[in-house]
Amino acid sequence: MSERDKTIDLGPLPELIGYVLRRAQLAVFQDFFAAFAPFDIRPAQFSVLTIIERNPGLTQTQVAEALGIKRTNFVGMLDELEKRGFAERRQARDKRSYALYLTADGSALMRKLKPVLKSHEARMIDRLGEDGRDRLVALLSEIVDGKPRRAPIRNGKASRTLRPGSAET
Amino acid sequence: MSERDKTIDLGPLPELIGYVLRRAQLAVFQDFFAAFAPFDIRPAQFSVLTIIERNPGLTQTQVAEALGIKRTNFVGMLDELEKRGFAERRQARDKRSYALYLTADGSALMRKLKPVLKSHEARMIDRLGEDGRDRLVALLSEIVDGKPRRAPIRNGKASRTLRPGSAET
Repeated sequence: MSERDKTIDLGPLPELIGYVLRRAQLAVFQDFFAAFAPFDIRPAQFSVLTIIERNPGLTQTQVAEALGIKRTNFVGMLDELEKRGFAERRQARDKRSYALYLTADGSALMRKLKPVLKSHEARMIDRLGEDGRDRLVALLSEIVDGKPRRAPIRNGKASRTLRPGSAET
Repeated sequence: MSERDKTIDLGPLPELIGYVLRRAQLAVFQDFFAAFAPFDIRPAQFSVLTIIERNPGLTQTQVAEALGIKRTNFVGMLDELEKRGFAERRQARDKRSYALYLTADGSALMRKLKPVLKSHEARMIDRLGEDGRDRLVALLSEIVDGKPRRAPIRNGKASRTLRPGSAET
């Protein structure tokens, strides 16, 4: 933070869950971008490759839903991974959908990325401690699962209707 | 989460700080989008309006830096807010930069948004409890500030060179 920022009044922002989440997410992704830049792999691409590696033969819809990626965005991502030779679509048995697999190059890439991921994660844990990481992951999971701990303050319906599902993000 | 997802192996993802941060950030922003949709205001726009409201007369660079928004993205955002009549650029005294102010419409908008923000935040706190919110904000601030708690595991240089600043995100 520059000297200049210290005199700027951020108002309620530093206490708002969404604001601090976004700043923290960008800080973590910045480290990820730098670490994975030599492989030109972004966080969402890494997640997709991980799911395909661990669950060969899933459909596009299944992978997109599992990661909460919109279908249109997912198709573009997969096009790029296929063009670069890391993943492939094969016609599924029912001929109406495609099943996804890593190529040999994709598997080799994932082996190379494992130590890169490990170092990145070690740097993040280093900022929080192992205990801090565990507490953070537990709190974030509560946000994603969207279970209210107490009766909603104003309007019970709002909590439920806005509760996130798997495919809306 | 759909029935189908339960059988998908997410591998290391649910334990990775970046992955859970991103999922939680998207879940919170989804509630924000829904709540602020009647005003067509996105989270980053709300942050910019908040800073200008609380610090009238700052330059574009100062606001962009305070929020960690890239200058090119910031100029586009401000163009839109100016076109919609919520903010304005005025020539600064040194004539080399612009000072930013809310218009009367911008101030009126911010008054209307206050209860919307309050309800949104109440729904988020409801998922965590007040204590959970406080713990979460503290942990996230440690990530953003990027102070290692212990000596880095592998390589001290990596922690420092990749440490986030204010204007890089």
